[in-house]
Amino acid sequence: MKAVIPYKKASAKSRLSPVLTREEREEFVELMLNQVIDTLKEAGIGTIDILSPSTYGLENMTKANVLLDKSDLNEALNRYLKQAEEPVIIVMADLPLLSSKHVKEIISTKKDVCVVPGKGGGTNSLFIKNPSRYTVRYYGSSFLTHCSIAEETGQSVEVYDSLFAGTDIDEPEDLVELLIHGSGAAKKYISKKFRLEMSRGRVRLVHI
Amino acid sequence: MKAVIPYKKASAKSRLSPVLTREEREEFVELMLNQVIDTLKEAGIGTIDILSPSTYGLENMTKANVLLDKSDLNEALNRYLKQAEEPVIIVMADLPLLSSKHVKEIISTKKDVCVVPGKGGGTNSLFIKNPSRYTVRYYGSSFLTHCSIAEETGQSVEVYDSLFAGTDIDEPEDLVELLIHGSGAAKKYISKKFRLEMSRGRVRLVHI
Repeated sequence: MKAVIPYKKASAKSRLSPVLTREEREEFVELMLNQVIDTLKEAGIGTIDILSPSTYGLENMTKANVLLDKSDLNEALNRYLKQAEEPVIIVMADLPLLSSKHVKEIISTKKDVCVVPGKGGGTNSLFIKNPSRYTVRYYGSSFLTHCSIAEETGQSVEVYDSLFAGTDIDEPEDLVELLIHGSGAAKKYISKKFRLEMSRGRVRLVHI
Repeated sequence: MKAVIPYKKASAKSRLSPVLTREEREEFVELMLNQVIDTLKEAGIGTIDILSPSTYGLENMTKANVLLDKSDLNEALNRYLKQAEEPVIIVMADLPLLSSKHVKEIISTKKDVCVVPGKGGGTNSLFIKNPSRYTVRYYGSSFLTHCSIAEETGQSVEVYDSLFAGTDIDEPEDLVELLIHGSGAAKKYISKKFRLEMSRGRVRLVHI
């Protein structure tokens, strides 16, 4: 059992650029990455690999292994899976609401594959018991794709239903979820810059 | 144990008006309401009350009781709770991804109150064992408010973590979730009008 976290710090999270500068986004993704690593460790996962196209921002990483692969996300992950000789959990780096309880439940699945959907049909985490028999295809509605890939290759699938594990931080409105439900360094960073404001019955993010 | 569903058909779901006409929105909310009622029945809840400011669209409702109250949502619900002599689950009418499994788990809570968060700090469902000791305050970040109200009155709280129970249908992008994860009449209605399209790695709603 090992975990792999795809990660890229340089100019990360461009969809947050309306509210955070590039420097801030890079600081923020690093905090989120560290939180995800801590969560995986807390869940008892011994081997944690970060898969990145560059060492930028990972020069001093001691909590996890850094694997370099300049290919695109799918190619790099599929190469990783092909070589893996044990079950793999792929975890996105932008899941600051993911808890060790979630991770323990995901990896306890009785099925061959466990897919954790994010909003808009994304895949926030993917646990694969037989990685050499599986290929990933992120982007687009990857949730449906990842369910189909399992079915087409005769592997059973569990869908892990969690609002918090399902919350990936991509857009300004996602920061609202972090401020409401989050904890730890990533939330602290955002709560120094923004507060929540009620307007017309809805919650909005306001720069401090 | 009984369930109450706040409901208003007239000019419902104005935030869907960029993609659905008023007539379509009214048809759609009625389908969602019926789906929620069926889900509650399937979960074994015997008494289901619809709380509405008007009988409009409820003239032929036979699956649930119709209670009229022209007051605003909070006032009407708090009056309802005050008179309730048994545990109450409040369920919003716009939760077509809610399943009977969710409902059964929510009402099985060991705590006094179970809050089901929706996106943006909303409250999609609220289970209250001692309704005469509780008041609701919807709008704004009602999730945090509802947790606080319980704590301030010495009632313990469970947060029910579900992406699907947490998906209320308010905005066009929520229809994407319905098309990806949904089933039943509400999904069927939307899938006759829209399809999903992949563009720049993201899933978008396109009129058929």
